[in-house]
Amino acid sequence: MPLFNARVQVSLRPSVLDPAGEATRAAAARLGVEGVKRLRIGKAIELDLEAPDRATAQARLELLSDRLLANPVIEDWSLDLAEAG
Amino acid sequence: MPLFNARVQVSLRPSVLDPAGEATRAAAARLGVEGVKRLRIGKAIELDLEAPDRATAQARLELLSDRLLANPVIEDWSLDLAEAG
Repeated sequence: MPLFNARVQVSLRPSVLDPAGEATRAAAARLGVEGVKRLRIGKAIELDLEAPDRATAQARLELLSDRLLANPVIEDWSLDLAEAG
Repeated sequence: MPLFNARVQVSLRPSVLDPAGEATRAAAARLGVEGVKRLRIGKAIELDLEAPDRATAQARLELLSDRLLANPVIEDWSLDLAEAG
């Protein structure tokens, strides 16, 4: 069975506040790093997935992203998929 | 002053266990998503940074990643940097 490598990027919707991002931005200023205008923290999920073909892998990952990896109320997700090896 | 867009990907070192990733993998199986062989959860940090030039932006982001965004004991990080606009 073919193996696929995928990366799912999950990010807060632009309209949603990011307290962790804001706290990190403040910490960056205290660290002496100037010029950080915007800082948003999201998730990067890496997967290895066995599936009979690419379309099935894509469908499984979309279900996983919608139902498990991202909270559709406040988050968006994007998916990169490649055959392994 | 030029504005730069950056993305810092922070991931657990391969030798480090990922309990959250394992729990998510188990949840995927319960959801009926078959074939997930490996699942690792990391952070994806997006930044807008003002800096006089690219080299300064790069240096500031490296300092930020080493000292704030990643825990060097258990995490690796990678950086993508582009001029905005």
